[in-house]
Amino acid sequence: MAVGLDKLPPLKPVTGVELGCAASATRYQGRDDLLVMRLSEGAVTSAVFTRNAFRAAPVDVAIRHLGQGAPRALLVNAGNANAGTGPQGIDDALGCCAGLAELLDVPTSAVLPFSTGVIGEPLPVAGLVAAMPSAVAALDEANWPAAAQAIMTTDTVPKGASATAELAGGRVTVTGICKGAGMIRPDMATMLAFVATDAVIGQAQLDELLRTAVEQSFNRITVDGDTSTNDACVLSATGASGVRLASDADVRVFAEALDRVFLQLAQAIVRDGEGATKFVTVRVEQGRDRDECLAVAYTVAHSPLVKTALFASDPNWGRILAAVGRAGIEGLDVEGVSLWLDDVCIAEQGARASTYTEAAGQAVMDRDEILIRIVLGRGEWVETVWTSDLSHDYVRINAEYRT
Amino acid sequence: MAVGLDKLPPLKPVTGVELGCAASATRYQGRDDLLVMRLSEGAVTSAVFTRNAFRAAPVDVAIRHLGQGAPRALLVNAGNANAGTGPQGIDDALGCCAGLAELLDVPTSAVLPFSTGVIGEPLPVAGLVAAMPSAVAALDEANWPAAAQAIMTTDTVPKGASATAELAGGRVTVTGICKGAGMIRPDMATMLAFVATDAVIGQAQLDELLRTAVEQSFNRITVDGDTSTNDACVLSATGASGVRLASDADVRVFAEALDRVFLQLAQAIVRDGEGATKFVTVRVEQGRDRDECLAVAYTVAHSPLVKTALFASDPNWGRILAAVGRAGIEGLDVEGVSLWLDDVCIAEQGARASTYTEAAGQAVMDRDEILIRIVLGRGEWVETVWTSDLSHDYVRINAEYRT
Repeated sequence: MAVGLDKLPPLKPVTGVELGCAASATRYQGRDDLLVMRLSEGAVTSAVFTRNAFRAAPVDVAIRHLGQGAPRALLVNAGNANAGTGPQGIDDALGCCAGLAELLDVPTSAVLPFSTGVIGEPLPVAGLVAAMPSAVAALDEANWPAAAQAIMTTDTVPKGASATAELAGGRVTVTGICKGAGMIRPDMATMLAFVATDAVIGQAQLDELLRTAVEQSFNRITVDGDTSTNDACVLSATGASGVRLASDADVRVFAEALDRVFLQLAQAIVRDGEGATKFVTVRVEQGRDRDECLAVAYTVAHSPLVKTALFASDPNWGRILAAVGRAGIEGLDVEGVSLWLDDVCIAEQGARASTYTEAAGQAVMDRDEILIRIVLGRGEWVETVWTSDLSHDYVRINAEYRT
Repeated sequence: MAVGLDKLPPLKPVTGVELGCAASATRYQGRDDLLVMRLSEGAVTSAVFTRNAFRAAPVDVAIRHLGQGAPRALLVNAGNANAGTGPQGIDDALGCCAGLAELLDVPTSAVLPFSTGVIGEPLPVAGLVAAMPSAVAALDEANWPAAAQAIMTTDTVPKGASATAELAGGRVTVTGICKGAGMIRPDMATMLAFVATDAVIGQAQLDELLRTAVEQSFNRITVDGDTSTNDACVLSATGASGVRLASDADVRVFAEALDRVFLQLAQAIVRDGEGATKFVTVRVEQGRDRDECLAVAYTVAHSPLVKTALFASDPNWGRILAAVGRAGIEGLDVEGVSLWLDDVCIAEQGARASTYTEAAGQAVMDRDEILIRIVLGRGEWVETVWTSDLSHDYVRINAEYRT
């Protein structure tokens, strides 16, 4: 079960974005698995994609189409990743784009395709195209919750977030949905996030806002260190509110709302991480720079020994200390390092803290949400990443999925 | 159970090395947990230690003592790592060295201490010192098998290897033992290896031989990517055979025997990896250089998704492909990459091989020992690493150890 995720929060419509879902029955039965997001004329879209060298066909096509003009629709299918499918995969992704383009009366290149699901099987183009008319018929600005459901694969809960920002010219809305239950399972794959706003934002500024928001959210979460062939994160600004980011203050207020939505979405993926029983924040303080803080944070967050100790609610500070020690930090003086679990100091000067008691450590580890704070004592930089534990269920889910 | 490890192979005595074990009853009951290795006068010793910044006290003391003259004895205790113990840990390690030095009539600095076991608890010096006389009384060149038993912690089998080399001046022997069941559990910690030969070898050459042997063995294995606070690997040359490495040919023959012993020891650790049900060789071919081959090999070997698929005997090539893709290889052309499971080609040109069948992949995955071969198609470099799978037992062992 997802850690601390209750039902989907209210998702405010974004004027200029209509969503429609349908059931293609190509893999799942009795549920929607196809999503069409139609963007109004004049909408500006920015996107970031997986850095995995083995990119899925839809990623290649989406990147190509983004270079050919403003997208008018996003097309998402769940159940088949169209990855590892070679030239046929490209043709299939284009076939789906063409099918939707015809229904919406836009150029094929105005459709961006996204796929998530099993790798290496041919995309069931005919079945997806056949389901498109019902998805288009369902298009409605109120359909964000249904959309969050339709893009799920192994997710146990739908994920979405919404915020508003009061700018000088008026109120604007930011709403998004995402899916992804491992970070990331390359077979039932992929982190996908779709966020939209009705603010008026130009391409260059939107690119920058997306890059910054992703850097502090989706680029700071890890479940198992694996990155999918299909990962994508898309931000569209319809401009339908007519409200511009007219000043630096407006940009700050808007970015704050945008970052909050991105962070909620990213954290929701960790909370629903495969087999997760804990939501863990790893904060590294007093580092010299970004790189060393992240190196320490990810070494701790990826350590199977730390993650199994978290699963066991075992305040096994030796494992955290050893992970910090092997993070490859040049000239790390262990005498300057201290470790905290929430507000309990567990180690200082490279050894167990004199004030530490097993009972105090245990009290923290028994919680569902835990902060591991590592103070390096060599600078002023701070970085935070979020992760989950490594449970029996993680192994079960990943070992038994195809069998 | 260890994969493909039967009982300990015959371990040939090395003239000039006597081993004695005893039961200190400080942690374990009814088994030896203390090992003394006495080295003859004139023996030359070389050692490499963990690069973890949080080094255990015995590692600091061993490094210091190595700089103060040729060691005459190695002292190993199993059950307590004397790590995370601050200044008291240094005093305790020195106390043990002094206790043995007195019994052997050598300087304290001629004793190198090694500890493996729980982190953060004070070393039970009195109990260890009290057991030393029986260990010394037991000193005998035939005791390698007993020594392999005495240094075990969570290991399920004792580990040792032996080889001889025919040099121009006569036959020399190389024998070694090791322990370590995770790579590495920082609580019940540590990879330790002790190897000796009766060949006549000077310090500089011995250092070089050790460095090379370790690089191709202990530095090429991984169970879970975690490195202990206590890791150490020691090579002693007693010179008792009187046989020198008199020519380049002698060096080659000797190095070959030495490397074989190191590789057997290192692979034994993987075969006995925590929860291991598979012994997996990851070979990366046709890379541009060492670094990129190792980056790919370790990304695959550390991927929890690949490791759980191995546990499930699931020929899930998409996970291997995705791991290769995220290894960070600059300008990797996926069209040039092919993947093999043993002799079965599973992917070529970035997609599933046309000749591949699930049945063929399944036949390989059903084996206990599997070769994953990744051909990058961009150079001539080859690197190999060895690893195990990620099983329910790995989580159980590491989650439940302290509870």
